[in-house]
Amino acid sequence: MIQGKQIIGFEESGEGTDILKSINPGTGETLGQFNKATPAEVEKAVAKAAAAFQIYRKKSGKEKAAFLEAAADEIVALGEDLVNICCAESGLPQGRIQGEVGRTAGQLRLFASLLKDGSWVDARIDTAIPDRTPLPKPDIRYMQMALGPVVVFGASNFPLAFSAAGGDTASALAAGCPVIVKAHSSHPATGNMVGKAVAKAAKATGMPDGVFSLLYGDGSTVGTQLVKHPEVKAVGFTGSYSGGKALFDAAVQREHPIPVYAEMGSTNPVFILPETVKNQAEGFAKGFSGSVTLGVGQFCTNPGMLIYENTEDGKQLTNKLEEHFAQTSGGVMLGSNIYRSYNEGVSKHLATSGVETLSKGAQSDALNVASPILFKTNSQVLGENPDLSEEIFGPTSLVVEAQSKEDILNIARNLSGHLTATVHGTEKDLTDYKDLLDILEQKVGRVIINGFPTGVEVCSSMVHGGPFPSTSDVRSTSVGTAAIFRFTRPISYQNMPQSLLPDELKNSNPLGIWRLVNNTLTNDKI
Amino acid sequence: MIQGKQIIGFEESGEGTDILKSINPGTGETLGQFNKATPAEVEKAVAKAAAAFQIYRKKSGKEKAAFLEAAADEIVALGEDLVNICCAESGLPQGRIQGEVGRTAGQLRLFASLLKDGSWVDARIDTAIPDRTPLPKPDIRYMQMALGPVVVFGASNFPLAFSAAGGDTASALAAGCPVIVKAHSSHPATGNMVGKAVAKAAKATGMPDGVFSLLYGDGSTVGTQLVKHPEVKAVGFTGSYSGGKALFDAAVQREHPIPVYAEMGSTNPVFILPETVKNQAEGFAKGFSGSVTLGVGQFCTNPGMLIYENTEDGKQLTNKLEEHFAQTSGGVMLGSNIYRSYNEGVSKHLATSGVETLSKGAQSDALNVASPILFKTNSQVLGENPDLSEEIFGPTSLVVEAQSKEDILNIARNLSGHLTATVHGTEKDLTDYKDLLDILEQKVGRVIINGFPTGVEVCSSMVHGGPFPSTSDVRSTSVGTAAIFRFTRPISYQNMPQSLLPDELKNSNPLGIWRLVNNTLTNDKI
Repeated sequence: MIQGKQIIGFEESGEGTDILKSINPGTGETLGQFNKATPAEVEKAVAKAAAAFQIYRKKSGKEKAAFLEAAADEIVALGEDLVNICCAESGLPQGRIQGEVGRTAGQLRLFASLLKDGSWVDARIDTAIPDRTPLPKPDIRYMQMALGPVVVFGASNFPLAFSAAGGDTASALAAGCPVIVKAHSSHPATGNMVGKAVAKAAKATGMPDGVFSLLYGDGSTVGTQLVKHPEVKAVGFTGSYSGGKALFDAAVQREHPIPVYAEMGSTNPVFILPETVKNQAEGFAKGFSGSVTLGVGQFCTNPGMLIYENTEDGKQLTNKLEEHFAQTSGGVMLGSNIYRSYNEGVSKHLATSGVETLSKGAQSDALNVASPILFKTNSQVLGENPDLSEEIFGPTSLVVEAQSKEDILNIARNLSGHLTATVHGTEKDLTDYKDLLDILEQKVGRVIINGFPTGVEVCSSMVHGGPFPSTSDVRSTSVGTAAIFRFTRPISYQNMPQSLLPDELKNSNPLGIWRLVNNTLTNDKI
Repeated sequence: MIQGKQIIGFEESGEGTDILKSINPGTGETLGQFNKATPAEVEKAVAKAAAAFQIYRKKSGKEKAAFLEAAADEIVALGEDLVNICCAESGLPQGRIQGEVGRTAGQLRLFASLLKDGSWVDARIDTAIPDRTPLPKPDIRYMQMALGPVVVFGASNFPLAFSAAGGDTASALAAGCPVIVKAHSSHPATGNMVGKAVAKAAKATGMPDGVFSLLYGDGSTVGTQLVKHPEVKAVGFTGSYSGGKALFDAAVQREHPIPVYAEMGSTNPVFILPETVKNQAEGFAKGFSGSVTLGVGQFCTNPGMLIYENTEDGKQLTNKLEEHFAQTSGGVMLGSNIYRSYNEGVSKHLATSGVETLSKGAQSDALNVASPILFKTNSQVLGENPDLSEEIFGPTSLVVEAQSKEDILNIARNLSGHLTATVHGTEKDLTDYKDLLDILEQKVGRVIINGFPTGVEVCSSMVHGGPFPSTSDVRSTSVGTAAIFRFTRPISYQNMPQSLLPDELKNSNPLGIWRLVNNTLTNDKI
């Protein structure tokens, strides 16, 4: 049995008597026991982070990059041990977890390369014009700098890539912010192994004690104490609407409000347009069924709604969906609470008049194993029951038959904010439905053409975010390099002597970065 | 007597029976009467803005630039009529208002040039790798796009540059967002003239009806209705803490929270270091006295606190400050309420034990004319009375004698968020006090060396913002080109056909803008 403690900077601490158990959702077996953090331990982690910030914020991009790369190496070096415990805690299959190790290391290395390049700071320099009339123009220089200690809430559905050393942690550390992780209670052993790897990397690369901590405990106690702490300057979260909104509310009610980047779920509507309905029903139905049930449907970008026109071709598509979805299978969900929520959501749909079951995947009675189910309704019922468009986390989706193009546009207009929207269409379809694209891009963070929303590429151009309620801050992304700006803010230096300026803003441009100098983009020195 | 109506897109409307009077603060004369907006008029302005957004968001950078330039031209063309009414309503002198006309037009033209250049959208392109294993890489393209209708609250202290067509309006319009101005009640006639000029420019350049509206009314009624309206997507505000915080609270409590950029005031501490105290007391005392009383002290960046060490040299500086400040004079304040608040703040200082009057400028009993006053205290009294560091809006400042370098650092550590901090020092001073600079850059948006904070340059590198409570969102600036990002958010397009992509993201790069293509910055086509 694993016994785990808080990771508070370079120390371990287990003062609490309240115990969190790690449970294998597939077997019910207890894998380990973890002391939940006491208020004093939370306070200590924050105090260490605040002290570490004064050192860490001055580390060069190369130094921070070495830390992130070392963390990636340490995580990869955990090898099978990490994969095994993570599979046991999450119920996810080995191939998926192996992929997630790669993704986690890849994210850390992507941010390391961003730091080594250095241009991300958005340096802007306006040089002085002493003889300008009526007033001289001062020398002003601008760049992004780190906000301060950041609290990251691990996600249940990505025990590696969105947890202890996941995208939020990687982007906050890259920005120059110490991180305190509130480990997700469904995979504390995984968090412990990864957390120790990050702490080891921090020590090995000369980072300050407290640049990284990882605590166990409940969101309502440990989480709330962290979010309300005056030294905490921003929060990253991936999870449920109720959890994310509670953190947002706590943060904006502080004496000094702070930003909360909560990614709170999304139904990710998919639209399939007439020519594609007619000519590609088979391939679409297969791809869609696979996307809905991939990873037991436990992705933020799971396509939870499919809209198309109720024509003869549409009926054929319905048949194909019925057929392909019947060939899907479920799997062990991430935990018993998620399994319970899934079944509650499914029951609610089953009880809604006008919603029918179109198809079912393989059924199972095994512990915490979700059975896929595809529902069908029409636009009128959807209009009368807007709750139907809310996310059910798991392997299910709702097929909505619309009556006309205008009806499809109306469904789009009535969407709330989502992470993604997907449109399948030929060139003619897309041109005919340009109006639809115009509406959708205002409802989501990412518009996908002829693909599926699952599979979020980690790159410079990714937006994994969207209008409320899919996230609490539409101005941000939690995946890709632009995620770094969640944890920074601009600063200007006026008439600062060269020797006291950050390297990014010195005339000599020692880092060779791109800068906007007197409104011209250049990587030259001045 | 001027009779003014709401400007609702291309219409004027005066349905309300509740009247706002324009008063000359120097004479008490009533200059004009304005119907306050009714709830139906507010609703109409928002509905028009929402409809206009669907057209305006698709306008090219060049089209939007033509609108902003036309607005600048129209405002300048108002000539003496505008200057006269603005001086009468604000009590500000002609030279200042003439300068502000130039600044207002300059801001609009600066944003126009940003739009014509086009690179501001932060375009990022990652091209597809169809044969990548295990999964193909899709084509993903990213850029900033407009948020939606924006509400701007005009500021009392900049009747032009931060009001109807001021920095908030210019940056929101540049971003592609329609603007509804809630005109400041202390200069409605100025707002009316400027608003008509903007509406005329919008019409002349083919912008949609509703891209700009201007309403009169109270913050608690018209303002609140606007901020709570579901179609409003962001808010810009410059004014008091209580006003800004109320808008922030209303916005975060909406069903769908929206960002509020409230600039809520700042004491702008100034530190003068030992060698400079010793050698430059005379010049500093003159410059400081001028900065405190410039524009009757009615600037957000007015230096409200001065800190230096209580040495023999410090006593000499005190004497010089006393001498130079005695030569200052006050003037008519922006309105009777501001004059009242100033005197209340001064009275509070006068009643605080341990705070003495160091010097007084010219005294006057004329209507709404503020008399400059310079206070003096020490670090211990300041520590015991943290309220002393709060802003008093007007021609006053508080000189704080510290006992040691450590005492100075402690004062800095205890500062809340401010727009600016200023340090006067020789190269040796600044090196000796590197710790002070490290602290200050975490407390403010702009650090100024050997200058004064008044006079905010409008340029790419300016940050006019700062940690709470100086602003409600430290991640932003309300002056300079970076202000545009307050009103935008990122969007990704995945596998979007070339013909349907925005020009900014097309392979051919028809706008010739700088883009991050596969992680390399280039202005080439693909």
